[in-house]
Amino acid sequence: MATEQDLAFMSEALVLAEQGLYSAHPNPCVGAVLVKDGRVIGRGAHLQAGEPHAEVLALKEAGAAARGATAYVTLEPCSHYGRTPPCADALIAAGIARVVIAMRDPNPLVAGRGVERLRAAGVVAEEGCLEAAAEALNPGFLRRMRHGRPWLRLKQAMSLDGRVALANGRSQWLTGEAARADVQQERARASAILVGIGTVLADNPRLAPRLEAPLRRYPVKVIMDSHLRTPPDAALFGTPGAVWIFHGQDAPVAARAALCAAGAELLFCRGTVQGLDWQEVMGMLAERQINEVLVEAGPGVAASLFAAGLIDEWLLYVAPLLLGLDARPVLATGPYSDLAEVPRWSVIQSSRLGNDIKWTLRPQER
Amino acid sequence: MATEQDLAFMSEALVLAEQGLYSAHPNPCVGAVLVKDGRVIGRGAHLQAGEPHAEVLALKEAGAAARGATAYVTLEPCSHYGRTPPCADALIAAGIARVVIAMRDPNPLVAGRGVERLRAAGVVAEEGCLEAAAEALNPGFLRRMRHGRPWLRLKQAMSLDGRVALANGRSQWLTGEAARADVQQERARASAILVGIGTVLADNPRLAPRLEAPLRRYPVKVIMDSHLRTPPDAALFGTPGAVWIFHGQDAPVAARAALCAAGAELLFCRGTVQGLDWQEVMGMLAERQINEVLVEAGPGVAASLFAAGLIDEWLLYVAPLLLGLDARPVLATGPYSDLAEVPRWSVIQSSRLGNDIKWTLRPQER
Repeated sequence: MATEQDLAFMSEALVLAEQGLYSAHPNPCVGAVLVKDGRVIGRGAHLQAGEPHAEVLALKEAGAAARGATAYVTLEPCSHYGRTPPCADALIAAGIARVVIAMRDPNPLVAGRGVERLRAAGVVAEEGCLEAAAEALNPGFLRRMRHGRPWLRLKQAMSLDGRVALANGRSQWLTGEAARADVQQERARASAILVGIGTVLADNPRLAPRLEAPLRRYPVKVIMDSHLRTPPDAALFGTPGAVWIFHGQDAPVAARAALCAAGAELLFCRGTVQGLDWQEVMGMLAERQINEVLVEAGPGVAASLFAAGLIDEWLLYVAPLLLGLDARPVLATGPYSDLAEVPRWSVIQSSRLGNDIKWTLRPQER
Repeated sequence: MATEQDLAFMSEALVLAEQGLYSAHPNPCVGAVLVKDGRVIGRGAHLQAGEPHAEVLALKEAGAAARGATAYVTLEPCSHYGRTPPCADALIAAGIARVVIAMRDPNPLVAGRGVERLRAAGVVAEEGCLEAAAEALNPGFLRRMRHGRPWLRLKQAMSLDGRVALANGRSQWLTGEAARADVQQERARASAILVGIGTVLADNPRLAPRLEAPLRRYPVKVIMDSHLRTPPDAALFGTPGAVWIFHGQDAPVAARAALCAAGAELLFCRGTVQGLDWQEVMGMLAERQINEVLVEAGPGVAASLFAAGLIDEWLLYVAPLLLGLDARPVLATGPYSDLAEVPRWSVIQSSRLGNDIKWTLRPQER
């Protein structure tokens, strides 16, 4: 059973873990705190793949004092050799007496083996302290490990009357500065930003977060482009971050050559009647270690993702204005004849951004 | 100039004033605090028309100690004989030395005469302390005094995609319990609840707040019913509160007799091509001392009020679900070809109610 002290130290480890939110990808965010005689003697957060894990940083800070200490870690210590040696071994070698773990690592390379390894060495290992908070830290990593696909966030800006653009397509700007600045943060934390070719051709977006300080890591720019119509001089080739273009089998050879030369990586994908096969795209992104995808596409792509049941989270920036009956709807759904049939969402968060509101929604279980 | 102490005591008076929110109508909510040697010696709030004003209650509590004290009042003390004698005279008679006033009373019977009367008697009178907060207390009373019409709140429940009902009309229930309970509070504070005949015929609403405790005062139930189609056995005749029915000149005589017998007061109003003349209705409601109107009508009445520019506040209860493209829109507006033309709103408040969100919006000045 977790004591009040355990909860307090694990909370501190969770706050440390958030330091990796923008950079740990494709690894999960992890925080660690070492405690002896009720005092913190070491702290660590995993910031970037290839750099030391949280436990190792905390052990380094504690030095010889680690012997006999309790370690609080937000994710089960790893048991395998990856880019770095196993953390379970490092904790054992340092003489840690007890390890409190928020949640088990679903990575099939770990999945309980870290705990076993600790226990086999005589270390007390306890699981489940603030588990829900630890889960919330890494939705993408966990979705990928458990379901073989990334966590998909659909981002849209809409009016009060549920419209994303006027009938003539005009939509700049619905929302104010504070909402647009928040979008930059959402972009920065994503492993990948995904758009459809329609958005590329209509808006020529840069698809990179615009922030004051440079980032340790830039999201991959993913374009859904069956026929490879992306112009090789598109603005997105001039911003940091890799470009991946999903295309179908009848993409012209000349376009392939030109886009490769522009620096894109081309990914062949099966087609469906509606376009590219979302399930296959998601599987390919997961194989390529993409944890969180921010979809910035138009209503067409949004509706097809919605129909495929792939939206894990919907970020809605709502501007208090009315675009009118003939304006373009946010998601083409329906028709429904009974309220029991309509898609329902849970409000995870609602926050005010200037004169706009940001809603974070997740589909409700049926 | 208001000192920090003045601001603190006026804040207390403003909190007291809120006690009248559900009952002071048609009078404004007013609070008063009497202070001597830095200590509060009397408090008062105006609770109901015909009962003592806030200043009088505070003077009564202070007794003889009032001599030489400072009075903090959220609205200029009255100078005329209404249902009670003038408060300015009472303050003078009690020997109050200084009166701090949040805002001037726009009532043409007062409008500065209360301040003049105090000053003529040698009392120091200061105006404008926390004026904006005092204004926010009485939007209806102030709108009526200044513009000869009530403060009109449009209340609607809608889905994420800006729809109020499925194509077949089904809409019970979009929102959850917490949102529906909040609506009862909004009903209770209104001077009148207004609906169109369409709503009466479709839903047979009771149009009375459903609250645990009985109210000191019940809102008037107002029906817009050109041809007097309200059934004399409608549910709204069985709930507390007067029934006023606005009708046009061709309302059948038999219906007039039956509705009068049912207890309704019939109000003749000029018609326009679209129906009854909103400007005239608003003027008549103001003459009848209605301060705040809660409109619970369907999209048709809502759109016509919006077109008439009469919506002062829009209460939107948003349920996170999608009713689909063919569902009924919240407000029929547009078409617009430029974002500079679209109606914009200011977000006054955004609050979470269970799994729903309540937005309080006001039209933005152009």
